[in-house]
Amino acid sequence: MRAEELKEHIRDIPDFPKPGILFRDITPLLLDPKAYRQTVDILRNRYEDQKIDKIVAVESRGFLFASPIAYQLGAGFIPLRKPGKLPYETIKESYALEYGEAALEIHKDAIQQGDRVLILDDLLATGGTAAAAVSLVKRLGGEVVEVCFLIELKPLGGRCKLNGTPVFSLLSYD
Amino acid sequence: MRAEELKEHIRDIPDFPKPGILFRDITPLLLDPKAYRQTVDILRNRYEDQKIDKIVAVESRGFLFASPIAYQLGAGFIPLRKPGKLPYETIKESYALEYGEAALEIHKDAIQQGDRVLILDDLLATGGTAAAAVSLVKRLGGEVVEVCFLIELKPLGGRCKLNGTPVFSLLSYD
Repeated sequence: MRAEELKEHIRDIPDFPKPGILFRDITPLLLDPKAYRQTVDILRNRYEDQKIDKIVAVESRGFLFASPIAYQLGAGFIPLRKPGKLPYETIKESYALEYGEAALEIHKDAIQQGDRVLILDDLLATGGTAAAAVSLVKRLGGEVVEVCFLIELKPLGGRCKLNGTPVFSLLSYD
Repeated sequence: MRAEELKEHIRDIPDFPKPGILFRDITPLLLDPKAYRQTVDILRNRYEDQKIDKIVAVESRGFLFASPIAYQLGAGFIPLRKPGKLPYETIKESYALEYGEAALEIHKDAIQQGDRVLILDDLLATGGTAAAAVSLVKRLGGEVVEVCFLIELKPLGGRCKLNGTPVFSLLSYD
């Protein structure tokens, strides 16, 4: 199965979560063991020689790809969560949404100076979440090896918010 | 590493998320590749001969164990999410919390009649979430092989809410 064939397992949902948005639903891919395995394997293979110390994943769909890859690479797994969810000492990064603001937190003790970190999320849209994730990792002294997405929505230009940080997406939509 | 030794990677956080609650923080376990791998391997081994068709995981910490196990068993992965998060047709189950009410949703097309389903979450406390998960799977015609938890808080008696459904927890606290 080539990467492009994985798109057959992404379901388009019009007008979700609000009118005018075409949502890319990854649950059919998760439900198909062959497609899920192939997705994880392609990404694992991409990073297996990159000496990744830690994988940082954005709550909660990012967890679904980051955790099997962390398991297989023998990397530590670090969750980025919405404010108030992580129980220990955290740092926070806020970012703008189309309407309003959101924020992510990371545990302060999750990253050591010089750690080689892979950031993983399911979707690159406007890039606000990913830019916040990069900032959190750097503030703790980590080196961002790459920011990796299952899906990139190219017309939204999220890549431009990640200036200078390598970006990879498995599947992209024009 | 025996299962009990994994407890060394669970951090106790007093008074989180509110006064009087002792929170069991699994992030140190996730951060330690050996402990994380061992956790996943013990659970994977428990189910590898059980002909599991689908693994149902509760958002979002349940995802962290369910997704590498689904990958390894070659089982389909099904997320249970809070209302409004799943984009396709869903059914919903509400349950009581200490104060107020919560609910979980599942995609209607996620389970076929007779599917052998493993339900996985990180924590068994009062059992409300788990009972809702069992109900959702049964309403769609699935057979619940077992409900599996990383951690069980025994004094809260959550097991009793899952009458007749097999329950397993890797680590338990009195």
